[in-house]
Amino acid sequence: MNKETLIATHERIKPFIHKTPVLTSELLDEIAGCQVFFKCENFQKMGAFKMRGAANAILSLSDEERERGVVTHSSGNFAQAVSLASKKLGVNAYIVMPENAPQVKKDGVKTYEGTIIECPSTIQHREATAKKIQEEKGATFLHPSNQDEVIFGQGTAAMELLEEYPDLDYIFTPVGGGGLLAGTALAAHFFSKKCKVIAGEPFEADDAYRSLQSGKIETNETSETVADGLRTHLGDRNFPIIQKYVGKIIRVEEGEIINAMKLIWERMKIIVEPSCAVPFAALQRDKEDYRNKNIGIILSGGNVDLSNLPFN
Amino acid sequence: MNKETLIATHERIKPFIHKTPVLTSELLDEIAGCQVFFKCENFQKMGAFKMRGAANAILSLSDEERERGVVTHSSGNFAQAVSLASKKLGVNAYIVMPENAPQVKKDGVKTYEGTIIECPSTIQHREATAKKIQEEKGATFLHPSNQDEVIFGQGTAAMELLEEYPDLDYIFTPVGGGGLLAGTALAAHFFSKKCKVIAGEPFEADDAYRSLQSGKIETNETSETVADGLRTHLGDRNFPIIQKYVGKIIRVEEGEIINAMKLIWERMKIIVEPSCAVPFAALQRDKEDYRNKNIGIILSGGNVDLSNLPFN
Repeated sequence: MNKETLIATHERIKPFIHKTPVLTSELLDEIAGCQVFFKCENFQKMGAFKMRGAANAILSLSDEERERGVVTHSSGNFAQAVSLASKKLGVNAYIVMPENAPQVKKDGVKTYEGTIIECPSTIQHREATAKKIQEEKGATFLHPSNQDEVIFGQGTAAMELLEEYPDLDYIFTPVGGGGLLAGTALAAHFFSKKCKVIAGEPFEADDAYRSLQSGKIETNETSETVADGLRTHLGDRNFPIIQKYVGKIIRVEEGEIINAMKLIWERMKIIVEPSCAVPFAALQRDKEDYRNKNIGIILSGGNVDLSNLPFN
Repeated sequence: MNKETLIATHERIKPFIHKTPVLTSELLDEIAGCQVFFKCENFQKMGAFKMRGAANAILSLSDEERERGVVTHSSGNFAQAVSLASKKLGVNAYIVMPENAPQVKKDGVKTYEGTIIECPSTIQHREATAKKIQEEKGATFLHPSNQDEVIFGQGTAAMELLEEYPDLDYIFTPVGGGGLLAGTALAAHFFSKKCKVIAGEPFEADDAYRSLQSGKIETNETSETVADGLRTHLGDRNFPIIQKYVGKIIRVEEGEIINAMKLIWERMKIIVEPSCAVPFAALQRDKEDYRNKNIGIILSGGNVDLSNLPFN
């Protein structure tokens, strides 16, 4: 894992991703008390940074592997990312989804022509079903966050951000499964002498915070957070990177997440999903520590169900 | 009214406005069957193109006039635009608003430190109250759409768009009071040999469409449209320009407006208000007429009440 791997990853996925814009807002700078540079992965293809990791994972397969297809059991943005990247590369994508997954998520996968395989909603059933497809079809399993190709792919967002703004003091990301956080931490380590990486995490799913405290991968007992993308836990590939290179994880309340999301919608006029608002909520919570600093924030995604918004 | 006036207007207001970005979307191009360039005035200061006209109107006043302040009785985006432009120029802004105006609109004006004067909700009361302030304070009345300085200010959005994309075949705008449409038509006339200007208008408030038919300014009997920015009618300054330079007005159903708005939110991940979605709805309705053309759309604004959205 070195700087050249990340550069090569970026070159590999470039034709399949957008170079997303970096936006700023005087009003949000005033509220946060610092200069914030928002890397808009909500404008990424299929609406989230996950496209980067999925594209890299599939592009890293051999021709023979591509022939047999890929399988994943994410029901969120990674499922759409795998479907779209597979479609662009002529690969079959099998997406295992719980029967009770929201229609809007199934529709997302269908838009990008992924093949949905339904199963009962427990994680055991999802894993068993994915396993079965691996065996039957010879498909390669892709993990949404705990796989080197995915981690490096996600890291290219921070790499682009630091190329454009080399003077950042900090980059904030959300932490769910840990792929984006680990990739960002590597990018900051490789491409900046001073930039530290901070994560925001909901109190309601604070497994990553507790993992850093205990030194081992913790799981969530409950995960009653509006930030539905952050309910998963870390893995053995990304946890060591996070331990080594991440400065701090700041936990935030549900109300803080919704307020941060509303501020970004109202002031920046862009759509971000709840998980995506978590780093800005974290920055606001600890704003005294970051006064007048240059802060990058990875706005991770913008896929929301417009008929079910958390605003009053 | 000539090209030089428009160039001078742009120079005058430049320090007070954003040069807004132009966004594109492969998915929306596919849906519309043409190449669409969205000029994002929803990212303009205070969230709408109205900032351009308001800034120009106030900058065109003498020192003495500025001293005495300005007054308007718009309750929408123009009120916020006048408040913000006045604040930046150290001018008092008196905003006449109906007592029953939504709190979100009053808050918008307060954010930018405009002085709200409440009155009963009829147009007669609003005009009388504004008149009284003109007399008492010597304040200059600013009209949201029927005033040359405002029309030219609004035209600078299309001017920027044509500077960046000189090859446009058409520019679409919404039509409410007619300031944006007239300004855009002048800009296209001055800055392009081939670009035609088309407006979208709700069937529920189709006064402009009927005005072009009858050759005189028509009003709306009712205005039950979700596009709350388009309920007003044309005026004697902008109507002749619209008659002379506008190609066509396309009327759209309420459902088409909401669908277009939803498409822009979901696919482009940006927030636009209902009025702002009308031109894209118009393009979709008559898409066969614009197949494979280069179309500019002025996305007019992004000020919505998030607790009262038209989605199911």
